[in-house]
Amino acid sequence: MKAEIIAIGTEILLGEIVDTNSAYIAQRLPELGIDLLYTSVVGDNLGRIVETLERAWNRSDLVITTGGLGPTDDDLTREGVARVLGEEPYVDPGLEQRVRAWFAGRGYPMPESNIKQAWLIPSARPIDNPRGTAPGWWVERDSRIIICMPGVPAEMERMWTKEVAPELERRFAGEVLVTRTLKTVGIGEGTVDEMARPLYATPGIGIGTYARADGVHLRIGAKARTREEAWARIRPVEEELERIFGNAIWGKDDDTFEGHIADLMHERRATLAVMESCTGGLLASTLTDVPGASSYFIAGLVTYQTEQKIAFGVPAEIIAEHGVVSQETAKAMAAAARERIGTDYGIGITGVAGPDPQDGIPAGTVHVAVATPDGEVYVLTTSMNQGRQAVKRRAVTTAMLLLRRALLGQLAGRPS
Amino acid sequence: MKAEIIAIGTEILLGEIVDTNSAYIAQRLPELGIDLLYTSVVGDNLGRIVETLERAWNRSDLVITTGGLGPTDDDLTREGVARVLGEEPYVDPGLEQRVRAWFAGRGYPMPESNIKQAWLIPSARPIDNPRGTAPGWWVERDSRIIICMPGVPAEMERMWTKEVAPELERRFAGEVLVTRTLKTVGIGEGTVDEMARPLYATPGIGIGTYARADGVHLRIGAKARTREEAWARIRPVEEELERIFGNAIWGKDDDTFEGHIADLMHERRATLAVMESCTGGLLASTLTDVPGASSYFIAGLVTYQTEQKIAFGVPAEIIAEHGVVSQETAKAMAAAARERIGTDYGIGITGVAGPDPQDGIPAGTVHVAVATPDGEVYVLTTSMNQGRQAVKRRAVTTAMLLLRRALLGQLAGRPS
Repeated sequence: MKAEIIAIGTEILLGEIVDTNSAYIAQRLPELGIDLLYTSVVGDNLGRIVETLERAWNRSDLVITTGGLGPTDDDLTREGVARVLGEEPYVDPGLEQRVRAWFAGRGYPMPESNIKQAWLIPSARPIDNPRGTAPGWWVERDSRIIICMPGVPAEMERMWTKEVAPELERRFAGEVLVTRTLKTVGIGEGTVDEMARPLYATPGIGIGTYARADGVHLRIGAKARTREEAWARIRPVEEELERIFGNAIWGKDDDTFEGHIADLMHERRATLAVMESCTGGLLASTLTDVPGASSYFIAGLVTYQTEQKIAFGVPAEIIAEHGVVSQETAKAMAAAARERIGTDYGIGITGVAGPDPQDGIPAGTVHVAVATPDGEVYVLTTSMNQGRQAVKRRAVTTAMLLLRRALLGQLAGRPS
Repeated sequence: MKAEIIAIGTEILLGEIVDTNSAYIAQRLPELGIDLLYTSVVGDNLGRIVETLERAWNRSDLVITTGGLGPTDDDLTREGVARVLGEEPYVDPGLEQRVRAWFAGRGYPMPESNIKQAWLIPSARPIDNPRGTAPGWWVERDSRIIICMPGVPAEMERMWTKEVAPELERRFAGEVLVTRTLKTVGIGEGTVDEMARPLYATPGIGIGTYARADGVHLRIGAKARTREEAWARIRPVEEELERIFGNAIWGKDDDTFEGHIADLMHERRATLAVMESCTGGLLASTLTDVPGASSYFIAGLVTYQTEQKIAFGVPAEIIAEHGVVSQETAKAMAAAARERIGTDYGIGITGVAGPDPQDGIPAGTVHVAVATPDGEVYVLTTSMNQGRQAVKRRAVTTAMLLLRRALLGQLAGRPS
């Protein structure tokens, strides 16, 4: 069954609110075996709402709208649907009672404008909305459906999970889409694409590559009558990809790279301390986004000024000789963090976050070093300037990547 | 002129990424006097991309797309545009050189699939993208325009501000909408609304209030033939609002709260050190997102474990007596950071990030303390649990808010 989503509201169209409802619904349709073909946003303008609804009504089996169910003059979803179906809205006594009761329960009189929220049309039945005043509409005619939900995420999500999704599942659950995402790191998207291409032709399987901050993701998708069947198609492809990419694959589905690092550290009962400069604490913050990180992450030092690096154990002569933004200083920071805090591993990061160059070193240049239990220190330099925040994020990812390689013994015998 | 935005990508359609690009562009079109009528999302499917582009091409003067410019088989924006205009893509030698140089500069060979990124069609000229491999397309024919930009926000935003917006302004700016956003803190939205209401009736002016993480924003908007005219309408209203809200207003337009803190610290030539526990470095990282923060931010200590707090100067007996998550410990951390690093101000943060309670203290409980040059220490406790990341962000905002009040002398004589 073909579906599309329409978000209604000038605030969303003009970007004053980012539309999270469409993503919420879109993520949940595949589990119901419903294909989403389009989502669109239209402002509070009756003519354009009608045009957009009409096209959707003509090309899709299921149209889901969010927003425009409020009491004011620019809440026009009901008017739009009524117009497209050529039906007359009327005030439903039961709904009117419910809306009035909602206000009475909160001790204020119902503004007359709210009466709109008691409207129905012949093809519509109300959808319960205990979290707000506006009931949704379940409109059904000519074996096509329009579902109108409120724009307030809390109201919409409750209506979706308790009312809409169960009904859709009961009636339409057809083919189920199951996906498995494999997350790789250290290989560019183009190369990942080439390495995976031999499997693209696998029947009944779809494979996509997606470049992400934490590396390139490979998504395997399979449709089947049952979850089991879909998994049976995915598994051999997954195994083949695991063979092809080896431990360039660090995780799957909802795994985060910081969570992966936490797992590796837990397995090895290893501890970590970090000394950061240009990332300003983002590495420590990212690592500690993982619940329970305190079992391995002991301390972080944000030595934002040169004197602080020295105060926390970086030899002044190294900075004097090589400069504060140098591989040598990064290595000394990693070693100092490890020794100073007394952990198994230490990480040091120094670089130029930008936007301006520093001492002639271009913004985006970052040196990341990892000190390991055997006393070796490995260093890696990245340079890519997509703005200050991006430079920081990239440096953090690089640090986690280098730590991972150290933990997997991929650096052994290759101290730099 | 009528515009619409099309976001292209299955990951966006399926809600795996929330589309922030459309909101970014939508917010900036009014300044150019360009009316946005629709935005839509379509997956990586050539047929549907063509259908969506064709409708847009027929009903809008300006079509802006984001995404689908990558090197892989499911990056289909170029193919879609070429199909709609009935033109043949060819490899542009200059672009090919640039793409190859991009890879050479990073020391890896260019996967052949990337050659797509050197494509042009007769009606298209490339738009420079120094932050990535994919140039944009500026397509112009029959006095209609299609602008194709990359999906990576950092690349898209740079392309928009440096290339696309200036060109659009030069050529099309009609009636201009100018807005001024005043950012307040410490007052609820309802109250802000009441305080500002007397000005709502001002002719030729629109005023809106928006609750945001960093406080309540007031947006003043005015449309006029020229920027000057619009500003002439806005200025008196802005001045009146500044009079009404006084220093509850901390910034305007694109100001960030961390930037505001940096300004206050610079003005006072004051220095800061922080000791963080549950925020794990997020405060330091947020403060150092501001270029030049190193002039006041001296160092951050992420004392994630109790022993580390003690090692960096928090009296063991305070922790023993009051517990590690307590106002007293937060105050001791702020004082220790200030004394240990030798700065004018110190901030201490301790709390339970969650998801689980700690020693019977519910997740979301956070104590934030600020130590000032006169030796006073002020503390503030927040408790709201909307997930680990949200708890961290809220704690950071609270810390910056408390520091601001200390810097403005609003806490004087009120040590806690």
